[in-house]
Amino acid sequence: MSGLVQIMANIRLPTADAYAASLNLPYTTHYFPQILDHFTFTPNSSKLFPQRYLINSTFWSSSSSPIFVYAGAEDDITWLAYNSGFLFDIAPIFNALLVFIEHRFYGESLPFGEDSYTSIDNLGYFTSTQALADYAVLIRSLKHNLSAEAAPVVVFGASYGGMLAAWFRLKYPHIAMGALASSAPILQFDKIVPWTGFYDAVSQSYKDESMNCFEVIKGCWDKLMELQSASLVEGWLNTAFVSTAMYDYPVPVAFLPTYPVKQMCRIIDGFPNGTSTLDKVFAAASVYYNSSGTEQCFDFASASLPLNGWSWQACTEMVMPMSRSNESMFLPYAYDYKQREAYCKSIFGVQPRPHWITTEYGGYRIEHVLERFGSNIIFSNGMRDPWRQGGLIKIFINIFSFFLGAHVLDLFATTKNDPKWLIEQRENEIEIIKGWINQYFA
Amino acid sequence: MSGLVQIMANIRLPTADAYAASLNLPYTTHYFPQILDHFTFTPNSSKLFPQRYLINSTFWSSSSSPIFVYAGAEDDITWLAYNSGFLFDIAPIFNALLVFIEHRFYGESLPFGEDSYTSIDNLGYFTSTQALADYAVLIRSLKHNLSAEAAPVVVFGASYGGMLAAWFRLKYPHIAMGALASSAPILQFDKIVPWTGFYDAVSQSYKDESMNCFEVIKGCWDKLMELQSASLVEGWLNTAFVSTAMYDYPVPVAFLPTYPVKQMCRIIDGFPNGTSTLDKVFAAASVYYNSSGTEQCFDFASASLPLNGWSWQACTEMVMPMSRSNESMFLPYAYDYKQREAYCKSIFGVQPRPHWITTEYGGYRIEHVLERFGSNIIFSNGMRDPWRQGGLIKIFINIFSFFLGAHVLDLFATTKNDPKWLIEQRENEIEIIKGWINQYFA
Repeated sequence: MSGLVQIMANIRLPTADAYAASLNLPYTTHYFPQILDHFTFTPNSSKLFPQRYLINSTFWSSSSSPIFVYAGAEDDITWLAYNSGFLFDIAPIFNALLVFIEHRFYGESLPFGEDSYTSIDNLGYFTSTQALADYAVLIRSLKHNLSAEAAPVVVFGASYGGMLAAWFRLKYPHIAMGALASSAPILQFDKIVPWTGFYDAVSQSYKDESMNCFEVIKGCWDKLMELQSASLVEGWLNTAFVSTAMYDYPVPVAFLPTYPVKQMCRIIDGFPNGTSTLDKVFAAASVYYNSSGTEQCFDFASASLPLNGWSWQACTEMVMPMSRSNESMFLPYAYDYKQREAYCKSIFGVQPRPHWITTEYGGYRIEHVLERFGSNIIFSNGMRDPWRQGGLIKIFINIFSFFLGAHVLDLFATTKNDPKWLIEQRENEIEIIKGWINQYFA
Repeated sequence: MSGLVQIMANIRLPTADAYAASLNLPYTTHYFPQILDHFTFTPNSSKLFPQRYLINSTFWSSSSSPIFVYAGAEDDITWLAYNSGFLFDIAPIFNALLVFIEHRFYGESLPFGEDSYTSIDNLGYFTSTQALADYAVLIRSLKHNLSAEAAPVVVFGASYGGMLAAWFRLKYPHIAMGALASSAPILQFDKIVPWTGFYDAVSQSYKDESMNCFEVIKGCWDKLMELQSASLVEGWLNTAFVSTAMYDYPVPVAFLPTYPVKQMCRIIDGFPNGTSTLDKVFAAASVYYNSSGTEQCFDFASASLPLNGWSWQACTEMVMPMSRSNESMFLPYAYDYKQREAYCKSIFGVQPRPHWITTEYGGYRIEHVLERFGSNIIFSNGMRDPWRQGGLIKIFINIFSFFLGAHVLDLFATTKNDPKWLIEQRENEIEIIKGWINQYFA
């Protein structure tokens, strides 16, 4: 099942960012009495749980100044806020109130406390539709309490949170007048995009760097099969290559150097003739696992994620089919829904609903739907991000914006080393949002 | 509590229409295995129940010809289909497939069979959001099974069903490319429109007919208080005056003559001087209760609706505040949410969510929201329909269409006695829908 665990892990954000953490971002922490089930009136439905949200009102100048809402996703909201320095950077420009809302069942927003993950009776309330309704109810209550009913609301989100931001604008246009969906693979469902696209895109990143690098990695799997625990090692290497492609940033993050794909390929290409393939790929993987150079050995099993919130989501709504083609640099793998279903039943006792996301939110022919319907959504995608192929890649009346970076880079905090194209990307986004707000008040 | 029962009853459709019933409409009956709860994965959620739907494929010419879906509302779907002859009339013009979907918890579509109404554990799944998701899932499955993925879908609905049709277009634009929402009071929530508007509009219908008629009715309540069971009789008279205004049609329906408000006022105005006020209003009420002239006496309590599906909906989501002003012809009544809440708790043991509809579907500033967002929705409202004041009454990019008729008249079957303005209204609607479909295929 390493392929499955891999799939689940891929969507996670970088797991460290010393720069952002060092900002010591200013916010206050609050808890909203949120309703458990917005869509039924069964006896359990009205139970309330404390949903955490963070507020920064440093720059909010009047009750009609904008409210920027960050749609929490699959992590602790304080961690997500640290990775979203862009919002803190632009708050003074817009005199905006910042609100970071934690997604139910993550961080401290556990509807059943320590028992939240113990049974399907409790986990059952962990869905994207409930999360969106949480945001709607909380925003409305907040605006009411702040006497800020006239304030325009823009929603921001990254990766899965970017999907939530886009869907929120589509489902709750009366609450959010715009959305910035960064690296949101809203098309990675059903049969909308080719299932092999993600791993082909990862492979392309390495091929673009060096054909030799690509070939060495592609050739390693046969050698690997001779090892003990080959499947664990395969997962460990997959994680390194995939994550490095996703986080192929022009600025260093805590655990990765600048442009880490280039670093990996330099290592592989730099070995003298006669070095074994496995020596090469393990050395490359150390860029991801051992950037400090201090690790003496690795626990291959550590790359297999423990069961967590995203595992549940991948076993219920977030069924994202992914295969690895013969043309990729990975061990070929054909996505098999039946395999996923059996896994989810055995682990959680739950039956996935693989067509629900496209039924509830759409996806097929989305350009046509949005042409006639949606507006004020920025879909930003990094040209280096393998998730881009599940994002929107055609231009239509909604703003679709491709930039040179990797996964969710545009929402990171500004740094003094940012390349010109990244500065311009963020300036574009600021100008577009200014336009929405001017239109709103016109 | 007669005021409350009155409020709940008002939204019902006419309870008889001999003409439509006599059509013996051609359809086949089907049952779809519908999921109980679309928005959770609790153990109960995946239970399936048979949802009834009716199909007419007489005129459907190809798999890309339009599909017209009637969004079932608070009644048996066969009865609603009988009252929606317009769809049968236009199916040949569009070569359209007709699909009438029954709303969960009405008619035969009872998720728990005979136990559906016995406890809040079961009734809890009876919500508008679940109903809309039912429609989405069923339509998608139907299109798949018919290999009709490319067929444009237009949703039709009347009254509460009109609200569902409009909301469906807003929430599921990827499934329905247009909607005709007939007499849909989507603004009759929270504080969007004045609470006294509905009864003021009813009163205006009588005042427009004859000032004396209005004054006689307005004067009857003091006299009534001297009677036994005054409250029951008040409810009985309210129902007669309100329903007659709603159903003030230019064509006869089974239990009412043409333009019944005029008939009532003729009776009131025709009495000689000295006739008692109560004699006058009782005689007028017989237009509604005894159009056949065969009833010898009335059971006043029969005007109080039994608890039914709409009672549940009015006690959960459909909290529509309504007062009767001093300027109306009714006994003044000030809407009191606390009273509603206490009633719903005592009857169903349920806590209403009075702000949920506007949170989930919007309503405030709706013209602004739709200007930037929605499209392809006809909101048709009858100028004689007291519900019009809870409908959309400003013109914007969505088609808003006012015609001379009363409640949901445009969806009735064509008759040979239809006035010119009604024929024109329907022709307009047909032309608008043709435009959507042409645009869809362009």
